[in-house]
Amino acid sequence: MIILSDLYMFEKPLGMRDTLPSVYRTIQKIKNIYNKEIEKWGYEFMATPALEYEATIGKVSATVDHHLFRLLDKEGRTVVLRPDMTAPIARVAASSLKKQPLPLRLAYTSTLFRTQQFEGGRPAEFEQAGVELIGDATAHADAEVIALMIRLLKMSGLKDVKIVIGHTGYVNALLSDIIDSPDDESALRWFLYKKNDVGFREHVQSLKITQENKRRLLTFIDSRRDSNQNTLEKIKELLPNSYGLTIYQHISQLYHLLKHYGVSECIDLDLTLISHLDYYTGVVFEGYGGSKGFAISSGGRYDELLGKFNRPLPATGFGLRLDRLIETLDLVQDDHQNNKTVVIYSDANQEQALKYAQDMREQGHPVVLQAEQGLKDSERFLNHFNSVIDFTS
Amino acid sequence: MIILSDLYMFEKPLGMRDTLPSVYRTIQKIKNIYNKEIEKWGYEFMATPALEYEATIGKVSATVDHHLFRLLDKEGRTVVLRPDMTAPIARVAASSLKKQPLPLRLAYTSTLFRTQQFEGGRPAEFEQAGVELIGDATAHADAEVIALMIRLLKMSGLKDVKIVIGHTGYVNALLSDIIDSPDDESALRWFLYKKNDVGFREHVQSLKITQENKRRLLTFIDSRRDSNQNTLEKIKELLPNSYGLTIYQHISQLYHLLKHYGVSECIDLDLTLISHLDYYTGVVFEGYGGSKGFAISSGGRYDELLGKFNRPLPATGFGLRLDRLIETLDLVQDDHQNNKTVVIYSDANQEQALKYAQDMREQGHPVVLQAEQGLKDSERFLNHFNSVIDFTS
Repeated sequence: MIILSDLYMFEKPLGMRDTLPSVYRTIQKIKNIYNKEIEKWGYEFMATPALEYEATIGKVSATVDHHLFRLLDKEGRTVVLRPDMTAPIARVAASSLKKQPLPLRLAYTSTLFRTQQFEGGRPAEFEQAGVELIGDATAHADAEVIALMIRLLKMSGLKDVKIVIGHTGYVNALLSDIIDSPDDESALRWFLYKKNDVGFREHVQSLKITQENKRRLLTFIDSRRDSNQNTLEKIKELLPNSYGLTIYQHISQLYHLLKHYGVSECIDLDLTLISHLDYYTGVVFEGYGGSKGFAISSGGRYDELLGKFNRPLPATGFGLRLDRLIETLDLVQDDHQNNKTVVIYSDANQEQALKYAQDMREQGHPVVLQAEQGLKDSERFLNHFNSVIDFTS
Repeated sequence: MIILSDLYMFEKPLGMRDTLPSVYRTIQKIKNIYNKEIEKWGYEFMATPALEYEATIGKVSATVDHHLFRLLDKEGRTVVLRPDMTAPIARVAASSLKKQPLPLRLAYTSTLFRTQQFEGGRPAEFEQAGVELIGDATAHADAEVIALMIRLLKMSGLKDVKIVIGHTGYVNALLSDIIDSPDDESALRWFLYKKNDVGFREHVQSLKITQENKRRLLTFIDSRRDSNQNTLEKIKELLPNSYGLTIYQHISQLYHLLKHYGVSECIDLDLTLISHLDYYTGVVFEGYGGSKGFAISSGGRYDELLGKFNRPLPATGFGLRLDRLIETLDLVQDDHQNNKTVVIYSDANQEQALKYAQDMREQGHPVVLQAEQGLKDSERFLNHFNSVIDFTS
């Protein structure tokens, strides 16, 4: 017989967590609400394997390389634990679902895996709910996924839902219109990503560019605090070419559509938003709420990913981190056990006790059925429930 | 930009599968039914991580070593993808849930991982629903988990549900009472596992044991076809010592309890049943149904596993393979898309179309809302739905 050494007995790998019943219940409740709502919007749920070839999914996933869980399969090929769902769903959309009429509306709730370098509470395995709308390039598609994301965040009881919307293509175009050096461009991009406005300004002042271009970059960084209407105007003003105009029209229409969805009060247009995922090409967005400062959900348009699977199609979608949502909701742990009834019985009364429990269950009540004989400490056990039905005498 | 080579583009690692929407829906429907029912029986759902240290879980899991998915973590320790849920739940029961009153009733639906050696349709990742009842050594506990398992199998629409019940401790005691050579014992055990009665008989005839002991072994193998009542009698007759009597009493009581649960017509007592899992110590069982010959669910009593986590406690439970269930049910694929309504609209009518869709959704109807502008082939798309609401003119 194997006896485990004390050292390893209860240990889990870095970033791996158990989900005990009370937390599990909360997550399940939210997932049920989400699944129903997402289906009502006409999305079809699907799943993909936990393991994929690195050559297929690892390379196109947006996860930074050193966060990938890798293992070797029996043929010596590198396999990864899926770090996101967008790339696997793109793979399926380009193969098994190739004959379905477009656009495709697909959804998932799935665990994702990203290695952690240090202890510090970041999970290496977490659940995400999300949707992908594939084959529709219009602002209508972006509006739909953003409105659905807001709806889900609100349905989970999150207060002060706020969605920041930017545009990857716009930032790229503006920076490359003004900056020649790749180093300067990535420095500015880094300041944007870190929301370090002071660093951004100082770097702009140090650049060898025209005063007008400095003004454009400074107006750009200041636009973070502008009203949505002013931000819209600045899109054209700062990038006065046909691409700037196209983006202006797309974002204006998106904003207009979101007003009709009744969610414009949640929207914060912010041209300076930079996503940590690198497959986005157009509109990007992040969802916030509650008291914590981190993004709970994020998404955007990725019009080039499907092309990597030989099926060039525009696409947009979002992912919502359930672990972060739960953390933000800061729920009081319920003691569910107390809401249950326990039926305790002696051998002689098993038949009646069983009948009673079955009737209660058929009426929808959860019932623990327990033989007295199986209890070591019946007082302690029974104290755990607020309703005890006694069939022991 | 990365372009994937055609070779790898759509390939998945051995035994890994996508779950397309129609199959996903079927599984989800069954899982919802199961979750509700399991909760009604007072079980608490929980989850454990996909990755565990091999030193903790790999060693006590019942999965044969070469079926474990292994990887190295950053400190060079071997990590495995969970091959079953019983060992991880035992770990949690012995640590985080240590202060909960006994017995514990825990449940899960979880993906499990077992590597496959060859192509041949066996999944390397599959979903299992199951329960663990920890801290109750009585036949009442075994009866409860068996009755619950039967209930779930029946609720999923499976025809001809049949549960074969045996006893690991009994087989062990009988064989060691008669056989001295470990080689002979494992040969007989192998014939039992393979249900090769001819091989078993021939091997018995070749043994250097008394005629009476040969008769016992042959009566034992013949008992597979006995009525439940006769099988019960043979327990005592073939092992006429106090351990045999204890097992007789336990199985008699179990059978009696299952009659009260109203499920005795599904029960086939079979002393020759051998489980492929090696942590079982007492009652073991397998669930069959439909037209396929393989076991869909299995379980049993494991009274020594918790001790490996320093908390010796009796326990019993089962796991039900959802992939095997789905295969057995042999369901006709529904075309869910047809049950949905599509609302198609032009830019000018977006507000009304949205209002219409929102009302429908609030009434519980799934609605696809689609801008005409976003469609490349609207005829093909609209043909996919049986109800089209037109807001384009």
